[in-house]
Amino acid sequence: MQAAQYIGNKSFQLVEGTSIKPQAGEVRLNVGYVGICGTDMHIYHGVMDQRVNPPATIGHEISGVVAELGDGVTGFAVGDRVVVRPLDWCGECPTCKAGHTHICQNLKFMGIDSPGAFQTNWTVKARTLHKLPQGVDLKQGALIEPLSVACHDIRRSRLQAGEKVVVLGGGPIGQLVAAVAKSVGADVLVSEPNEARRQFSDKLGVQSINPLEQDLAAFVDEWTSTKGADVVFEVSGVKPAIDAMTQIAGRRGRIVMVAIHSQQPQIDLFQFFWKELELLGARVYEAEDFDWAIELIASGKIDVSPFISSVSELQNIGTAFANMDGNPEGMKALVSCGAE
Amino acid sequence: MQAAQYIGNKSFQLVEGTSIKPQAGEVRLNVGYVGICGTDMHIYHGVMDQRVNPPATIGHEISGVVAELGDGVTGFAVGDRVVVRPLDWCGECPTCKAGHTHICQNLKFMGIDSPGAFQTNWTVKARTLHKLPQGVDLKQGALIEPLSVACHDIRRSRLQAGEKVVVLGGGPIGQLVAAVAKSVGADVLVSEPNEARRQFSDKLGVQSINPLEQDLAAFVDEWTSTKGADVVFEVSGVKPAIDAMTQIAGRRGRIVMVAIHSQQPQIDLFQFFWKELELLGARVYEAEDFDWAIELIASGKIDVSPFISSVSELQNIGTAFANMDGNPEGMKALVSCGAE
Repeated sequence: MQAAQYIGNKSFQLVEGTSIKPQAGEVRLNVGYVGICGTDMHIYHGVMDQRVNPPATIGHEISGVVAELGDGVTGFAVGDRVVVRPLDWCGECPTCKAGHTHICQNLKFMGIDSPGAFQTNWTVKARTLHKLPQGVDLKQGALIEPLSVACHDIRRSRLQAGEKVVVLGGGPIGQLVAAVAKSVGADVLVSEPNEARRQFSDKLGVQSINPLEQDLAAFVDEWTSTKGADVVFEVSGVKPAIDAMTQIAGRRGRIVMVAIHSQQPQIDLFQFFWKELELLGARVYEAEDFDWAIELIASGKIDVSPFISSVSELQNIGTAFANMDGNPEGMKALVSCGAE
Repeated sequence: MQAAQYIGNKSFQLVEGTSIKPQAGEVRLNVGYVGICGTDMHIYHGVMDQRVNPPATIGHEISGVVAELGDGVTGFAVGDRVVVRPLDWCGECPTCKAGHTHICQNLKFMGIDSPGAFQTNWTVKARTLHKLPQGVDLKQGALIEPLSVACHDIRRSRLQAGEKVVVLGGGPIGQLVAAVAKSVGADVLVSEPNEARRQFSDKLGVQSINPLEQDLAAFVDEWTSTKGADVVFEVSGVKPAIDAMTQIAGRRGRIVMVAIHSQQPQIDLFQFFWKELELLGARVYEAEDFDWAIELIASGKIDVSPFISSVSELQNIGTAFANMDGNPEGMKALVSCGAE
């Protein structure tokens, strides 16, 4: 088998490895396709070296085919096409016991804190698997993990049909959030400075605005007949969006914090009091988000194929990363790892 | 009749006025007791002169007796003892139509944006009234408005019995929040630097901590067996509390923003993502909060008498304000306006 290893400094090496025999409760997969995530790009830039400890096989947006079952695994058979929910929780901490295993106090994220999917074989716990139904291929399957992020964000927002939604930031996750919001029956606006990304929104049938050229707050005020947005998703990670979110959210509006802001930005807290706003942090996903994402693709409610910008072979993973680096037009680059 | 008028620069004058005859849908009250609120102290300091436009009669924490009914008023009779929910909403804006009249887009706060209760007679809309049951006297009645603030904060938090709650700030509203949280069956900790206020907590049977002397985060970590607080109420308005709130809230913890922060403080947004925190703005109250507050006092579940620090006559209102100015030991000063 072959594995790609991130070795630091924007570099990968391909190594010959040995398949890991699945232990009790585990499953060995022949890996199909693996998407390159924003977090993978952060790793590529070296900013997470201390956490990933290179050389390391990363990758967590994966589809594959069951190749071998460990003892005691039920519900799966060799040949099943599956996706992996790449979370390894302890089951023992107060948060796990309260049912929130996805934010376990000792959570290991597979592909960051433990080996990932950029290899031809991957051995994982069976509890992380979701089966792909007929009609969802392995390329679409690799999009289920990021789509599940969007499903989780939407569930956190308690979005209802007919509500008016603003998505701040039109990158891959922002566009998926917009698509899921639209599938729920919401009226969606994407705010995004980059023209290619706004054109992507247009193709999905979602209206967009350039906040550097148009007054977003004035637009939302008119669009909502002074009510303000029912839900705002902050997916951009930039300070102007932090200022915009409290401005455009209407009374009792919900703001979902999807982006990672490590700089402790200044926030207009007065608006939280005045308009009784809610800020809801959202992190990764739960099992039901994967179920929902699979159903959205299987039913045809969301077509993820426009999100696939490129498909590269595993031996070209370095080029695939380099092509995505600083490229706002690329939505989702897939790496093919063999299984079809 | 007599009315106290705030005339600017920490000063009041007593004037002889004429009772205002209630129009259709209105009721004239003989005013019983009126509490001095933190907002009244802000007005007293001159920082809200533009909004109140002195000379102005302020005051909104009021109990009274129905003296005269306007046309079409049902459900009230002369002699009924009542309290006023001092909100004047438009009923026409999208927020009112969505049922959130307390945060109406055109809300007028009675006693700030229109004449208030520091007078012997006050004429108000009947829709603002709640009847006092047997066994709740007019002094206790004047505490129902601030207690309703606390009830609203607790309802916003979705607090459950057995949950662990930290109240940041042990002033009058913080102590009332602690009392309501305790009445719900929560386990409550008040964080407050002032010794007199901590002693007040002790008397209410609520544990307290001095965050300047003890490590609050370490205390909460041990108190909650590493889980963190289920709910945090930020009632202090100071920056160290903003830093503490994201630190001490556990995963999926709810933070209720009660204090008014006009300075746009820096916030550790990363914790919102990492722990899936919620920030909930809370402003004033709704009708059901008044109903709940009245029930809490009537049933004896909360005894508000310890909150009454002093009772002054209307002609001594200036002294009553001066005595509360910068006095952390004073919880609630009442002004007696005649009706018993």
